[in-house]
Amino acid sequence: MKSRLLLAVALIALAGTASAQVKPEDAIKWRQSGYGFMAWNMARIKANVEGAAYNKEEVVKAANAIQAIANSGMGALYLPGTDKGTGWEKTRAKPEIWTEKEKLGKAAMAFNAEANEMAKVAAGGDAAAAKAQFGKLAGTCKGCHDDFKIKD
Amino acid sequence: MKSRLLLAVALIALAGTASAQVKPEDAIKWRQSGYGFMAWNMARIKANVEGAAYNKEEVVKAANAIQAIANSGMGALYLPGTDKGTGWEKTRAKPEIWTEKEKLGKAAMAFNAEANEMAKVAAGGDAAAAKAQFGKLAGTCKGCHDDFKIKD
Repeated sequence: MKSRLLLAVALIALAGTASAQVKPEDAIKWRQSGYGFMAWNMARIKANVEGAAYNKEEVVKAANAIQAIANSGMGALYLPGTDKGTGWEKTRAKPEIWTEKEKLGKAAMAFNAEANEMAKVAAGGDAAAAKAQFGKLAGTCKGCHDDFKIKD
Repeated sequence: MKSRLLLAVALIALAGTASAQVKPEDAIKWRQSGYGFMAWNMARIKANVEGAAYNKEEVVKAANAIQAIANSGMGALYLPGTDKGTGWEKTRAKPEIWTEKEKLGKAAMAFNAEANEMAKVAAGGDAAAAKAQFGKLAGTCKGCHDDFKIKD
């Protein structure tokens, strides 16, 4: 666990080197796109677990999309120089993303773990379990937003 | 195959009913986010298959993200009333999306098939095979853009 955390921190630190050819405005747009697409899929799961009817197939599709985005390595899009700038809109990344790397790595790992679990639970098809897991997943989103995202 | 195509067309037609509570500007923003995030992942695969070094793990992550987005049911985001409007930017959806449903269904199914194959080929780890499959996948993106997306 400790070594995985250090690896995550090291990968975030290296991201700038590996993706040096990426334009800052593209990196910002692409990460905003990832969060924007996850927002749709979170909304879909929410509607299913809180609504009158539960559509297993729709929750599976949504959870799989969130899982794949969570595991895609978006840390690489937080290049040096992308703490300011505009993609689809002005970035709302807080400076702490680049200064509190251990805390960020823990938040990212918690999110990934809950996203992986969400996909597993969705595949099982139990609506109550999906609702419980959706709450855990949403909690990791909120935790990271509280610490690392500038408020609306 | 014929019945799957008819099903796809029917699902697109039904999307408006099933997701009537979604705001048009959100639907447009969410679909632009899906394409935006796929753009990053296509760029990553391209860099790997055309560059000096091939990073299997990065291609797998990128291909898995594209596959999950392709299979997420984005057709539901083309609600009636979203042929005009602004999400992250003014929509570039052509009116033909709502009038040429059989042609659109075929384009969507071709894209899905190549995205699924891309994920399978990426997992195999053969750089040459990934390059060939990337070409096929990119071809289905371009085909759909030519017919259904307003040019830059």
